[in-house]
Amino acid sequence: MCGFIGIYKDREVAGDIYTGLLTIQHRGQDSAGMITFSDHFNIKKGNGLVRDVFKEKNFEYLKGNMGIGHVRYPTIGGGRKEDSQPFLSNVPYGIALAHNGNVTNYYTLKEKLESERYRAMNTTSDAELILNVFADELSHQLPFSIRGLYRAMEGVFRKVKGSYSGVAIIKDKGMMAFRDPHGIKPIILGKKDNSFAIASESVVLETLGFRVERDLLPGEVLFINRKGEVFHKRLVEKKHYHCIFEYIYFARPDSVMDGISVYQARLNLGKELAREVKKVSPDVDFIVPVPDTSRAAALSLSEETGIKYREGLMKNRYIGRTFIMPYQKKREETIRLKLSPVKHELEGKKIMLVDDSIVRGNTSKKIIKLVRECGAKEVHFAVSCPPLRFPCYYGIDMQTMEEFVASDRSIEEVKKHINADTLIYQSMEGLKKALETEDGLGFCTACFDGEYPVPVPGEDLRRIKSDRKKEF
Amino acid sequence: MCGFIGIYKDREVAGDIYTGLLTIQHRGQDSAGMITFSDHFNIKKGNGLVRDVFKEKNFEYLKGNMGIGHVRYPTIGGGRKEDSQPFLSNVPYGIALAHNGNVTNYYTLKEKLESERYRAMNTTSDAELILNVFADELSHQLPFSIRGLYRAMEGVFRKVKGSYSGVAIIKDKGMMAFRDPHGIKPIILGKKDNSFAIASESVVLETLGFRVERDLLPGEVLFINRKGEVFHKRLVEKKHYHCIFEYIYFARPDSVMDGISVYQARLNLGKELAREVKKVSPDVDFIVPVPDTSRAAALSLSEETGIKYREGLMKNRYIGRTFIMPYQKKREETIRLKLSPVKHELEGKKIMLVDDSIVRGNTSKKIIKLVRECGAKEVHFAVSCPPLRFPCYYGIDMQTMEEFVASDRSIEEVKKHINADTLIYQSMEGLKKALETEDGLGFCTACFDGEYPVPVPGEDLRRIKSDRKKEF
Amino acid sequence: MCGFIGIYKDREVAGDIYTGLLTIQHRGQDSAGMITFSDHFNIKKGNGLVRDVFKEKNFEYLKGNMGIGHVRYPTIGGGRKEDSQPFLSNVPYGIALAHNGNVTNYYTLKEKLESERYRAMNTTSDAELILNVFADELSHQLPFSIRGLYRAMEGVFRKVKGSYSGVAIIKDKGMMAFRDPHGIKPIILGKKDNSFAIASESVVLETLGFRVERDLLPGEVLFINRKGEVFHKRLVEKKHYHCIFEYIYFARPDSVMDGISVYQARLNLGKELAREVKKVSPDVDFIVPVPDTSRAAALSLSEETGIKYREGLMKNRYIGRTFIMPYQKKREETIRLKLSPVKHELEGKKIMLVDDSIVRGNTSKKIIKLVRECGAKEVHFAVSCPPLRFPCYYGIDMQTMEEFVASDRSIEEVKKHINADTLIYQSMEGLKKALETEDGLGFCTACFDGEYPVPVPGEDLRRIKSDRKKEF
Amino acid sequence: MCGFIGIYKDREVAGDIYTGLLTIQHRGQDSAGMITFSDHFNIKKGNGLVRDVFKEKNFEYLKGNMGIGHVRYPTIGGGRKEDSQPFLSNVPYGIALAHNGNVTNYYTLKEKLESERYRAMNTTSDAELILNVFADELSHQLPFSIRGLYRAMEGVFRKVKGSYSGVAIIKDKGMMAFRDPHGIKPIILGKKDNSFAIASESVVLETLGFRVERDLLPGEVLFINRKGEVFHKRLVEKKHYHCIFEYIYFARPDSVMDGISVYQARLNLGKELAREVKKVSPDVDFIVPVPDTSRAAALSLSEETGIKYREGLMKNRYIGRTFIMPYQKKREETIRLKLSPVKHELEGKKIMLVDDSIVRGNTSKKIIKLVRECGAKEVHFAVSCPPLRFPCYYGIDMQTMEEFVASDRSIEEVKKHINADTLIYQSMEGLKKALETEDGLGFCTACFDGEYPVPVPGEDLRRIKSDRKKEF
Repeated sequence: MCGFIGIYKDREVAGDIYTGLLTIQHRGQDSAGMITFSDHFNIKKGNGLVRDVFKEKNFEYLKGNMGIGHVRYPTIGGGRKEDSQPFLSNVPYGIALAHNGNVTNYYTLKEKLESERYRAMNTTSDAELILNVFADELSHQLPFSIRGLYRAMEGVFRKVKGSYSGVAIIKDKGMMAFRDPHGIKPIILGKKDNSFAIASESVVLETLGFRVERDLLPGEVLFINRKGEVFHKRLVEKKHYHCIFEYIYFARPDSVMDGISVYQARLNLGKELAREVKKVSPDVDFIVPVPDTSRAAALSLSEETGIKYREGLMKNRYIGRTFIMPYQKKREETIRLKLSPVKHELEGKKIMLVDDSIVRGNTSKKIIKLVRECGAKEVHFAVSCPPLRFPCYYGIDMQTMEEFVASDRSIEEVKKHINADTLIYQSMEGLKKALETEDGLGFCTACFDGEYPVPVPGEDLRRIKSDRKKEF
Repeated sequence: MCGFIGIYKDREVAGDIYTGLLTIQHRGQDSAGMITFSDHFNIKKGNGLVRDVFKEKNFEYLKGNMGIGHVRYPTIGGGRKEDSQPFLSNVPYGIALAHNGNVTNYYTLKEKLESERYRAMNTTSDAELILNVFADELSHQLPFSIRGLYRAMEGVFRKVKGSYSGVAIIKDKGMMAFRDPHGIKPIILGKKDNSFAIASESVVLETLGFRVERDLLPGEVLFINRKGEVFHKRLVEKKHYHCIFEYIYFARPDSVMDGISVYQARLNLGKELAREVKKVSPDVDFIVPVPDTSRAAALSLSEETGIKYREGLMKNRYIGRTFIMPYQKKREETIRLKLSPVKHELEGKKIMLVDDSIVRGNTSKKIIKLVRECGAKEVHFAVSCPPLRFPCYYGIDMQTMEEFVASDRSIEEVKKHINADTLIYQSMEGLKKALETEDGLGFCTACFDGEYPVPVPGEDLRRIKSDRKKEF
Repeated sequence: MCGFIGIYKDREVAGDIYTGLLTIQHRGQDSAGMITFSDHFNIKKGNGLVRDVFKEKNFEYLKGNMGIGHVRYPTIGGGRKEDSQPFLSNVPYGIALAHNGNVTNYYTLKEKLESERYRAMNTTSDAELILNVFADELSHQLPFSIRGLYRAMEGVFRKVKGSYSGVAIIKDKGMMAFRDPHGIKPIILGKKDNSFAIASESVVLETLGFRVERDLLPGEVLFINRKGEVFHKRLVEKKHYHCIFEYIYFARPDSVMDGISVYQARLNLGKELAREVKKVSPDVDFIVPVPDTSRAAALSLSEETGIKYREGLMKNRYIGRTFIMPYQKKREETIRLKLSPVKHELEGKKIMLVDDSIVRGNTSKKIIKLVRECGAKEVHFAVSCPPLRFPCYYGIDMQTMEEFVASDRSIEEVKKHINADTLIYQSMEGLKKALETEDGLGFCTACFDGEYPVPVPGEDLRRIKSDRKKEF
Repeated sequence: MCGFIGIYKDREVAGDIYTGLLTIQHRGQDSAGMITFSDHFNIKKGNGLVRDVFKEKNFEYLKGNMGIGHVRYPTIGGGRKEDSQPFLSNVPYGIALAHNGNVTNYYTLKEKLESERYRAMNTTSDAELILNVFADELSHQLPFSIRGLYRAMEGVFRKVKGSYSGVAIIKDKGMMAFRDPHGIKPIILGKKDNSFAIASESVVLETLGFRVERDLLPGEVLFINRKGEVFHKRLVEKKHYHCIFEYIYFARPDSVMDGISVYQARLNLGKELAREVKKVSPDVDFIVPVPDTSRAAALSLSEETGIKYREGLMKNRYIGRTFIMPYQKKREETIRLKLSPVKHELEGKKIMLVDDSIVRGNTSKKIIKLVRECGAKEVHFAVSCPPLRFPCYYGIDMQTMEEFVASDRSIEEVKKHINADTLIYQSMEGLKKALETEDGLGFCTACFDGEYPVPVPGEDLRRIKSDRKKEF
C-alpha cells in the first residue's frame, strides 16, 4: 500500500510531483519522499504527511526536469525514517528508484545479494533491494544501451518475486517505468506534449493535466531517454493478476485501473450485494454507509433494494494520523472522534450499515455499538466483499494480521462477535461478476480464496511470520 | 465563523479542549488557542490548524480544571497572530474570554473605551473589545458577586452590538457563558456528573461524552462558581434571530442547534428544493452533490424527484488550507486539486449539480466547467438556498464580498455567468418551511432579504467598507 | 541578573534591540524578549538564547520606533515561559515594561495588590508586579501628565522594595526609564541625534553607536515623549548602594558603570590581591586564570608579584547552556567539557589558580582536581574577592544557595574542602580600595558583610526560603 | 579546515561523538554529521553548528558501537546541504567515510572515475570522491582481507593527490583510519581499555577520557576489526609536511600535534617575534592581543620585551555565525559587534596589537581604526607569522582568496594599507625556530614561500581558479 509518481518534463517537475503526491496521499501517510535530477540528484524524504514533509524551502533545491516521488504505508520493515522511498545507488551511473508492492523473497534475495555481490543494504525496505538487484544487473551491461537495460530488467523480473510497479531515474540517461510479471500492482502512463507522467493511479494524471495514455502491461519496461524518445518492451508474458482489493477499498473512486473505473466497480459491488441482501430481506429503515469508501456500494444497494439511503455517520476530517490525545487513556473512544453519529437519523430506526470489508472485526464492533447507543432499534451489517481469510504477501497490509475475524469463524460467529442483528457478505460469484470485463482482466483474489499467483519461498515465509510476531 | 469551547471539570481539561477543538475545526482553520486556569492562566495560541498549533509539550503546562478554547476564521481584523483568541485581561481579577460572532459597532465602541476608560486594545479582534467592555463593567462591581456579574453583563449587552456567544474564566471565581440578546450565534451546554461543557456545537459535547443539557437563551448569562454551583439568568428578552446559514452550510450535519438537527434541516431543504426542480422538470440522468455540505440536500432531492444520485465529484482530503503549490501560477487550477471528477459517471450524461449556496459564483463556474470537460452532455445547477444578496455583519465571512453574483443579476444572468443549462434556486418559502419548528424558532435571514435584526451604526458601516476595500 | 534595553528612535528599532540583546546576553541566557510599539504593541518572547528566540520572520512584525528588550536569568520564579519579560498591561493606556533587579517584598506586595486592587498577576515574575503597581498608580493620575507620571512613580518607589532598574513604554505617550531609590542595579543613557538608548550596560550603547550620556541617578525617572522631549526628575534622594558584584564578576569588562571601568576595577582587584599573596609568598611557577572573568585580576596579580602568567585552562566556546549530553551519566565530567587544560603548561609545575569568587566550592574543587590530574606539583588558589557568606536578595542568583562554602567554614576548612595547597582571599579592605573613587560611590557589599541596604520583610523572607527549598 | 572523529567502543558511541564534535567545533561551523553502525548505518547530517544539527531525538536511532563524525568548513564546493560529511557508499559491503583535507586533483579524478568506472558522484565534496576511489579499489579485492584493504588504500594513495586524513567504517568488518602520504593534516589515535578513538586533534581524546597513543604516520593505514584487533601499516614512505598553519592559527591551543604543543608553539612564536620587535624597539605602553588565537604569542612577546600586556579588546561570545542583523546595512559595523574595545585601557595609550596573521588585511584595518577611535595615541601591529603570499590547496580556506594583502605589496605598503604606525612580521627563521623539534618534523610552509609539497594538476588548477571566481 504505497503510491509513486515519476515525471519527465521540459521544465521543473518538483511542483507537479508535490501536487501529485497530495493526490495519492490516501495510498500512504507514513512517509513521503522525492528525488529530482538536475545535473545531480536532489533529495527530500521524511516521516509524515506530504504537507508536513515538504516545506517551501525544499523546493529551492529540488530542481530538475525529471523526478520521482513516493508516499509509503509500511509493510515489511516498520516505520524507520531511513526506509522512506525513493532510494539512491551510486554504482553504476547513479540510480534513483521508488515502487509500490511487496517483494516476497525479500530475505533470501537480500542475503544472496549481500554475500555474493557484496552489495550492502542499509534499510529493511524492499525498494532498496529492487534498486540493488537492478544496479547489480546493470553493472554487467556496461556501457549503457537500451538492450542492456532490458537485459538488466529481465534479471530483475527473474530474481525478484512478488508485486512491484515502479519508476527509476538513471543519471544522465533517462527515466524508467516497470511493472512486475503478473501486473499485481497498478501503474499508468500519461502524456502532455513532450512530457510524461507515470503514477500508481490515473487521478494523478488528470489532476496534473496529463492525458491518460495506457496502463503498463505485466512484465513491461518503458524507458524515456533524455531526448524524450520512448522505448518499451514486454519482457515476460505471464498471466495478469490485478490486486482485486484495490477496487474494493484501496484506490480512489475517481481512478480508473486497467480499464476499470473504481467507482463503477463499487457500484457493481453494491448491486451484486443486493442479491445477497434480498435473500435475507431484512426489515430495514435506512441503509447507512461507513464513510468514506463504502458510499458507492451502499448507494447502489439502496437503489436495488429500494431501502432509503442516509448518511448516519460523519467522518471528522481533522482527526488525522498525527493525532495526539493527551490524558486520554481508552483507545476505544477514538472511534467516536473519527466517526460521529447523526443521532437524529439513527434513533428508533432499523439500520443496515454497509462497509467495504471486515478485517479484524474490532472497528465493525465499535461502530455497531455506537449506532446502538444512538437508539437504533436494529443494526444489520452488509459487506461489499466476501470474508477475508488469507494473508496478503503482495503489499496490502494484511500479512501482519495473524487472524482475520473470519479466518476461523463461521459467518454466524462473526455476526455474534461484532454484535450485528444480521451479517451479509458478498458472494465470490458476486465479487467476480462485479469486476467482469469484456477482455477478461485477471485478478489476484488470494485474500479471499488463498490462491496465490506468486508463491512465497518457505524460508521467507518463516521470516515474515517471525517478524510479524515481534510487532505484536 | 469561529468556534469555542469552555470546560469545567473535576480533573485536567486540556485534553478535552484539544479534542473538542478538533471536532469544530470546520468552524475556523485560521488560528487556534487555549487558556486553562490552574492557580494562574496557561496560554497557547497560534496560527494554523489545531493539530499544528498544539504540540505534545504544550500539554505539560496547560494544566487546570477550567479552560476555554477557540478556533478562528478571520472576520474583522485579518489574520494577525496577535488576533488569536482567547484573550486575557489582568484587571480586575484576571479574565480570559473567547467568543463566536461579530461586533457591529466595533470601531465606535473601541474608540470610546480607549478615550474614556483608558483601556488600550492591542489587536483588531472584537473578542478583545468584548473582554475589555466586560472587564471595565466588572471593575465597577467590586468586590465580586453574582449580582455584580449580571450587572456587568447587562452593560455588555447594552453596549456591544452584533452577535456574540462565548465563554470566559474569571480568576479564582469560575467560568461564565453568554449569548447575545438576539441569540444569533449558537451555544449549547452539556453536563456529566459535576462537569460542564459549553460549546458552539452539540457535536463537541457528544464526542467528549457530555450529555446535552440545553441551548443558552438569547440574552442569557450562565456562571459556574468554583464549588460547581450554577447560576443563570436571562438578562434581556428580545426576539430570537438564529443565523439560518449555520443550518444551510456552516454547522456540522451531526450537530443539533436550538432543537433543530442540521442534517434533518438539509434533508428538508432538498425536499423543498424538489418543488422548484419539479416546476422545471429537467431531463436529467444523475443528481450529483458538490461535496461535502450538499450531500443531504442532494439525497432528498433525488428521493423526491426519482432522479438517481451519484457521487460524481470527489474531494481531496489532503489538500488543506496550508497547501503550498510551488511553481504553480494559475489559481484556477486549484479547483481540480480540491475536487476531482469521476469521469466515468459524468461522461455522456445529463447532470444536475446540487450545492448549498452560490456566493461569488466563481467556484460554481469552475465546477460546471470541470464537469463539462469530463464529457457531461448537460449541466444543471440546483441550490438549496435562495440567492444570497446582502452582506452579513454577524460573523459569516460575507461582509467582505462587495458583490454577490446574485446581488445585481437576475437568476437568468447568474445562470449565464456560471454557464449552467438550468439554474434552480430554493424559494424563500421553501427555506422557511424547511426550518419550521413547532415552537417557531426565529431566524436571521438578512443575507437573503436584507432584514437586519441588529442595525450597524453608520460610522462603523463606513469603516467596515473602507477596511474591506483595503483587503482587495 | 538580567539585562534590558530601551530604544527610542526616528526609525525602526527592532534591529538595534536585537543586536543590543546579543551584546548583553551574558546577563541572562534563560529567556529573551522584545516589545516594540508601532500603533500597537508587537511582541516576541521565548525561552533560550537571543539567537534562538528571534527568527528572521519575527522582524516582519516587530515594527515601530520605540521598543524594549530583555534577557533573563531566573531569580524568583524559576524558568516558566510566561515569566519572560517584557510584560504588558492594557489598563491604563497600555504599558510595556522590563527591568533588572529583584523585588524583596514580592509576596506581600503582590497579595496586597490582588486583594485590594483586584489586579491579577499571571506569573511569578517581579516585573509583572512592578508593572501592575505602576499601572495601578497611573490609573489614579488620569488623564496623562508628566506630573501624574512622577506621582505614579513616587508610589512605585514607596511601595516596591529591592532593586529595580528598567524601561517602559506607555502607549501613545512615550518611553520611560527608572532606577530604584538606592541605585543598586546599573542603568545608563545614550544619545545619538534625536535618538535615545537606555541599557543595563554601557557596552550596548557603544556597540550601537550611541554616545554615552550618563548613568541614571538612584530614585530618578526619565521620560521621553513622542515629540522626543526629555523630562527627568530624581524623585527620592537616598544613599547609593551599587551592587559590588557587578564589578567583580557579572558585568562585561568593556563596560563602565557609574563612572568605574569594570576592567580597571578587576585589574585593581588583582593588585590588591597581590598584597595578600605576598603575605604568604608561595613558591609558584605560573599564575593561571580560571577563564573568562578572572583574566584581568590574574594579569595584574602576575605583574605585581612577578610570577609568570599562563593560560593553562581553555574554555570550550561551543558547549553552551543548551548542551545535551546523551548517555552521559556523571555530571562531574562536564567540567572537562567546559574547561580544557593545556597539559603542557601545567605538568610538573606549581600553579596558582586565580578565580573571581568561590560560591559553593564545587567548581573550584573540580578545577583543582583537573589541574592536579595534568601533573601539576602544587595547586594554590587565589580569589579576587573576600569570602561570600550572605545571600543576595537584590538580583544576583545567590539567594537560592542556602550554604556558601564559606558561610560556616573557616578559610582553612574551605582550603581543605577544595583541596588547594594554599587558599588566599581578597581582604575587605582590598576590595574597598580597589573600587574607591574620588566622589565616593557607595556599594552594596551585603554578600560579604551582611549589611543589607534594603531590609526584606519577614514574611517575604520566610516565603523566599520556603521556595528555595522546593527547588532542591 | 574540517574536523573528524571515529570511535570504536564496547558500548554506544553516539554520545561520545557528539561531545567530541563540540570539542572540535572550531574546525568547522558550516555543517555537522554523524554515522553510527549498529547492524546497519544510522545517519544524521545537517547545516549549522553541532548543537543545532543534533537534537535529543536523533540519539534514539544513532545506535551502535562504531561511529564517525564530522564538522565542516567549506572548501571546494560551497555549502550545499548534500555536501555534509560523512558519506556512504553501498558497494562493496557498505562504507562510511569522513576526512579532513583537500583533494588537489579533484576535477580530473572525479571525471575519470565517472567515465571509466561508472561511479556517479552526487555532490561536490572531495570526501565523496575519496570514498568512491576507495570503494572502487576495494571492489577489486573481494572477498575482504587485511591485505586487500592495504592494496585498496595503496590505490587511493596513488590516485588521490592532496591532503586527507580520515576515518571510515566498513560494514560488518571494522573501522579504518588513514593519513595521506605527506601527513599534511593531523590525525591522532587514543585508547581506553578495548576502545579506540581517532580524531583530528588530541583535545578530543582528552575530553573523552582516552589516553593519547600516537599520531598516525604519513601514508599509514590502521584498521580495527570487529574483534578489536588492530592492524596497521605505513603503505608509502614520503617526507612529512605537516601544515604549519595549524599551529599558528587553526588548532586549539590545548592540542598536541605530532608531538608539538600548540600552546607552546604559540608562546615560541611570541618569543621569536620579540626579536623582530626589539629591532624596531617602538615606544609602546601596552601589548594587546587580538582575541582569541593570539593571546599566547602576545603574552610571551610581553614577557620578552617587558611591555605590559592588557586585554584591550573583548570578543562577544554570543554573536556567532548564525547571526542575522535586521535593518543593518553596513557590513563594516559587524567588527564592532564581534570585538568590543575596553576604551579605558586604550585611551591616550600607545598600543601594540598582536595578531596571528594578516590575510586580506581588511579586519586588521578595521581593528586598528576601532582602537584609534577609542583614543589610542599610536597603534603598532605585530604578526606572529611571516607575510602570507601563496594560496593553500590543502584545506586551509585560502585558495579562494585571489589576493593576500601581502602578495603584491611591500611590508611598508601593507602597513599603510592597514594604517598601522609600525608593522612587524615574524621572520621565516623565527617561524622555523619556533617549531623546531629534536627529531625534525617537516612542515608545509607553502602559504609563506610557495614551495608546494604536492603539485596541483594544471587542469585542476584552472578549474579551481574558475570556481573561485564564480564565488565572488
